[in-house]
Amino acid sequence: MAAAPHDHLMQIAFALYPQFTALDIVGPFQTLADLPDVQAVFVAAQRGPVIDHTGRLSITATETFGEVTRPEIIVVPGGFADRDAGPGDPVVQWIRAVHPTTTWTTSVCTGSIFLALAGVLDGVDATTHWGAYDRLHALGAHPTEERVVERGRVITAAGVSAGIDMGLTLAARLFGDDVAKSVQLAIEYDPQPPFDAGAPSKVSPELLAFVREIMGVGTPA
Amino acid sequence: MAAAPHDHLMQIAFALYPQFTALDIVGPFQTLADLPDVQAVFVAAQRGPVIDHTGRLSITATETFGEVTRPEIIVVPGGFADRDAGPGDPVVQWIRAVHPTTTWTTSVCTGSIFLALAGVLDGVDATTHWGAYDRLHALGAHPTEERVVERGRVITAAGVSAGIDMGLTLAARLFGDDVAKSVQLAIEYDPQPPFDAGAPSKVSPELLAFVREIMGVGTPA
Repeated sequence: MAAAPHDHLMQIAFALYPQFTALDIVGPFQTLADLPDVQAVFVAAQRGPVIDHTGRLSITATETFGEVTRPEIIVVPGGFADRDAGPGDPVVQWIRAVHPTTTWTTSVCTGSIFLALAGVLDGVDATTHWGAYDRLHALGAHPTEERVVERGRVITAAGVSAGIDMGLTLAARLFGDDVAKSVQLAIEYDPQPPFDAGAPSKVSPELLAFVREIMGVGTPA
Repeated sequence: MAAAPHDHLMQIAFALYPQFTALDIVGPFQTLADLPDVQAVFVAAQRGPVIDHTGRLSITATETFGEVTRPEIIVVPGGFADRDAGPGDPVVQWIRAVHPTTTWTTSVCTGSIFLALAGVLDGVDATTHWGAYDRLHALGAHPTEERVVERGRVITAAGVSAGIDMGLTLAARLFGDDVAKSVQLAIEYDPQPPFDAGAPSKVSPELLAFVREIMGVGTPA
């Protein structure tokens, strides 16, 4: 008799939904999927390709939310769908269902909005994309301007690319610092951006206003 | 009459093949796909989902190599398939066919092996994953230990995560520094890895040997 696939594997469920942002989920995936005894699964409301916020990239969901009921770890990406999401959203309902039994519940970028809608972040320090602090606050969390915020078994990461830093942090919690360093070396994560413009405090007011406009994130009141 | 989709768009073709590494291609994609007047397409030998080197993630190819004959820009990811690839590989044949008319020909990680097999890197400075310098050299390129190597209209990036730095470099070439900085801010690329282990020179000999073993990249002769 074949054992159930995750009898001896740590299941890490990477959530997908229409208009997710690809790097939000692929960053953590690449830091975690090759770890020993890990079963990475992509999960969505329905199986099949799920289209990202650009409309150009699809990642295949191999499991449905209804099938992934006891994941050890969940990773929820951000995107553009969170702006219209409410408590009845399939992602939110799934988080509410599985969070009580996860070992780690995590998000990248505005994935934290879904966590907040599921009640996971009530009164909890958390981060999100810099353009979404207000929304996170309105949902009862305590927005915290750090790259990766770990509180108990909830880890939230800042915008998009911060998921790589979050994934390495999580890899260290799961398997120790040396394994996390091994992953960092394997993915050659020795960042050398050609510019130093990755945070609102690092750019001109004009450039910040421009990015707020194109992303549709208003100036905070 | 509808105009052909790329009559007024800059087509950026992101190559896929079995056993590609997801972050290699999603990093550059996320820095380029939202730029104005860009048409991002995922291209492979056949349309449909293409499975990555972990066996857990699929990205959908929406076009075939035969259909994408005049892309302005190509991005070739690394992975594990390049180890067995030869001049007859579909990716290599496609690069050979389209490179003469591209504006930019780019690679991430061992994607440079495919460029080399296509003859694009003969006698040219280029980079790749740190574990593949020997193979790149054997194919006639001049391995160069830099994060992003730009020579004429060929840009190669180091391992996996270096594609983000490459993508921002390319965004600057295409649209200017301010647009590239806007992208960096939008994806909040203000890296803060929890460790400093992203290059062979930054880790212990034991850890380097361990990663060489698990990645199947031997110690250079």
